[in-house]
Amino acid sequence: MKAHLLTIGDELLIGQTTNTNAAWLGDALSRIGVHVERSVTIGDDARAITDELDRAYQDARLVITTGGLGPTHDDVTKSIVSQYFGAPLETDDELLARVKQYYERRGRDMPPEVADLATVPRGFDMLQNDVGTAVGLWHADTSTGDERLIAVLPGVPPEMKSIYENGVEPRLLARADLQDLAHRTLLTTGVPESSLQRKIGDLSDWLGEDLKLAYLPSTNGVRLRLTAYARDRAVAEDRIDALEGELRSRIGKYIFGTGKDTLEGVVGELLRKRNLTVATAESATGGLIGHRLTAEPGSSDYFLGGIVAYANSVKTGVLGVEPSALRDHGAVSLPVAEQMAAGAAERLDASIGISTSGIAGPGGGSDEKPVGTVCIGFAKRVEGGATDVDSVRLQLTNDRSLNKELFATSALEMIRRKLLW
Amino acid sequence: MKAHLLTIGDELLIGQTTNTNAAWLGDALSRIGVHVERSVTIGDDARAITDELDRAYQDARLVITTGGLGPTHDDVTKSIVSQYFGAPLETDDELLARVKQYYERRGRDMPPEVADLATVPRGFDMLQNDVGTAVGLWHADTSTGDERLIAVLPGVPPEMKSIYENGVEPRLLARADLQDLAHRTLLTTGVPESSLQRKIGDLSDWLGEDLKLAYLPSTNGVRLRLTAYARDRAVAEDRIDALEGELRSRIGKYIFGTGKDTLEGVVGELLRKRNLTVATAESATGGLIGHRLTAEPGSSDYFLGGIVAYANSVKTGVLGVEPSALRDHGAVSLPVAEQMAAGAAERLDASIGISTSGIAGPGGGSDEKPVGTVCIGFAKRVEGGATDVDSVRLQLTNDRSLNKELFATSALEMIRRKLLW
Repeated sequence: MKAHLLTIGDELLIGQTTNTNAAWLGDALSRIGVHVERSVTIGDDARAITDELDRAYQDARLVITTGGLGPTHDDVTKSIVSQYFGAPLETDDELLARVKQYYERRGRDMPPEVADLATVPRGFDMLQNDVGTAVGLWHADTSTGDERLIAVLPGVPPEMKSIYENGVEPRLLARADLQDLAHRTLLTTGVPESSLQRKIGDLSDWLGEDLKLAYLPSTNGVRLRLTAYARDRAVAEDRIDALEGELRSRIGKYIFGTGKDTLEGVVGELLRKRNLTVATAESATGGLIGHRLTAEPGSSDYFLGGIVAYANSVKTGVLGVEPSALRDHGAVSLPVAEQMAAGAAERLDASIGISTSGIAGPGGGSDEKPVGTVCIGFAKRVEGGATDVDSVRLQLTNDRSLNKELFATSALEMIRRKLLW
Repeated sequence: MKAHLLTIGDELLIGQTTNTNAAWLGDALSRIGVHVERSVTIGDDARAITDELDRAYQDARLVITTGGLGPTHDDVTKSIVSQYFGAPLETDDELLARVKQYYERRGRDMPPEVADLATVPRGFDMLQNDVGTAVGLWHADTSTGDERLIAVLPGVPPEMKSIYENGVEPRLLARADLQDLAHRTLLTTGVPESSLQRKIGDLSDWLGEDLKLAYLPSTNGVRLRLTAYARDRAVAEDRIDALEGELRSRIGKYIFGTGKDTLEGVVGELLRKRNLTVATAESATGGLIGHRLTAEPGSSDYFLGGIVAYANSVKTGVLGVEPSALRDHGAVSLPVAEQMAAGAAERLDASIGISTSGIAGPGGGSDEKPVGTVCIGFAKRVEGGATDVDSVRLQLTNDRSLNKELFATSALEMIRRKLLW
């Protein structure tokens, strides 16, 4: 199925707003096998909208418009659609009552022009908006023989997405020329894409037209996107389950989560389940590990706090790192990272200490320890008051901001691996 | 001047990449008075590109294309432009030498197809690319009477931006139907937009067609964008200077920087100039203040480190907060915030201590201290070993992530105000 997108709004043309709607719809449509062939952005201008609507409707089986559906004078899409299809606008009483109620609940009078929100072109389906007041519109036109489809959506992204997901996608999937699909994302970190591919090995017996695997590298790791197509959603889900099982049997220990999981959330859950607490000792990351751990609501159950030991005086004076370790090995070294982690666990009375000492850049690198070097220390307090320590040294990038992010990710992943592997 | 944009690339249609180029160009062009009337995205398909190029070239005085200029078989824009304008591709020897050199420097053989990068359609200007290998193209066509302009740019955003700024914008500004302009952004934080407008007051004697002021609210404060138009850049700059002077005379103390300044960078410079050091005591922000301060290269000159005191045991045990203060006032209170700040300054031997204790949400709120409440403490050590303290209580939002960001911003702004006001 071929589709054209028509995104409407002056704010898109002057770059005040980036056109995320077109990207989001392109992604959503291509996932169900709809091929977006052209995407056009125009301003809030009746003539231009009519021209582009006509062109799109001539060329493509499916046209989706976004924008121009609100109550202000700029919002002309609905009246243009009404004129273009010769479909007079009719007030929907139930919708009008709902719009009135929306204003009443907020204790405001309904401005008269808002009544326009409750009109629908004759013959069009109304697509419920769970997030705002402007409804979407849907029309399947078979008057010319071939079926032509049009969906008219608001421009506010959460409203557009909600109406697409609840109103448009089910109607598209009901068309015989579309397959259903299922997708899932597995999250890994700490393994480069090429190495992950090698570890996964040959999947040619598994993959094909009906089952696909994509590697999506990002700052914090490689995501694996699994997509299955079938006439039936349940069959597609079964295919995905089987492929996920196979991937987990090959590289399961590198997969820290799925979908919208975060590494800090996964680590937090591990700590919570095991009744463990953690304290940080951050040098190169400057507080970012603590910031990420506390991004999770309820993190006070397992995160006690930490010492940001940017200056060496703080490493020795507050964390108790031995001055001789700094002198003999330098601040960015495995012994210092281990002493920092142990110091944090002991000072804050936590089960686990985690530390970073590294060179984020741009300055401070040397031949022996170039920019991007980080030492990560891990300490775990065991029976009898002793503390087990471990550490790793990694070489990451040349970019300060990226390095700080990657250092923190590596430290969180180290906690996960030490607890699970 | 009317312009049409043509952004080319399958990755844009399937939503793998959000079309930031269209937004960036829309913004850049509208700032110099070019009116973007339509923006079309199509895939890497020769037929579709030719059709859209033809349509755009018929309709608009200026056409800008992005994408499809690289060395792979998907990259067809240059040959299409060559065919459309009947302008044969000719190898530019200097450019070929530069491309060869690019590969030599990286110790790689130049793939044969890369030689195409060094060709230019006859009669087109080559626009230097300071960031990559693909050059841009420019053509001013007066064959039909009216002058028509076309700029062909690569799709990689930094390359596109660099060529636009250095090659396209100067050529556009040389056209008689464009005014020159100057713009500047003044940065404020900690003052809501409405309150800032009130403090600024009436500017009707200042503003008009030639001089504009826009309020741009963002997470971390309100930016003021000043734009002046004139036939001559120097005149426009003078107008901006005068308006900036007037704004500074009215609300100067709220302006922490201009352009791409960051609050952490400005605070860091203040500390550096005065030979002061800072230590943090973070509860609600979990390490974010330290993370932001250390985003600046060279921050070790003034940032010693800090204590992330998420648990009350860390507030008392490491920072030295009195248990009675916690008991009598609660952790989120002015006395505790002050003791935290003083504790950090003293423990880490810093000139200044800054602290946050708050309720980021979603849980933990009460009638007396709802979600969004934060107490910020400031401590400064003075002659004779004493410590001066101060604190403020603020009420911010209901969103955890936004609250953490705003709490940190408020703390950084408190340092700035205490040092300057």
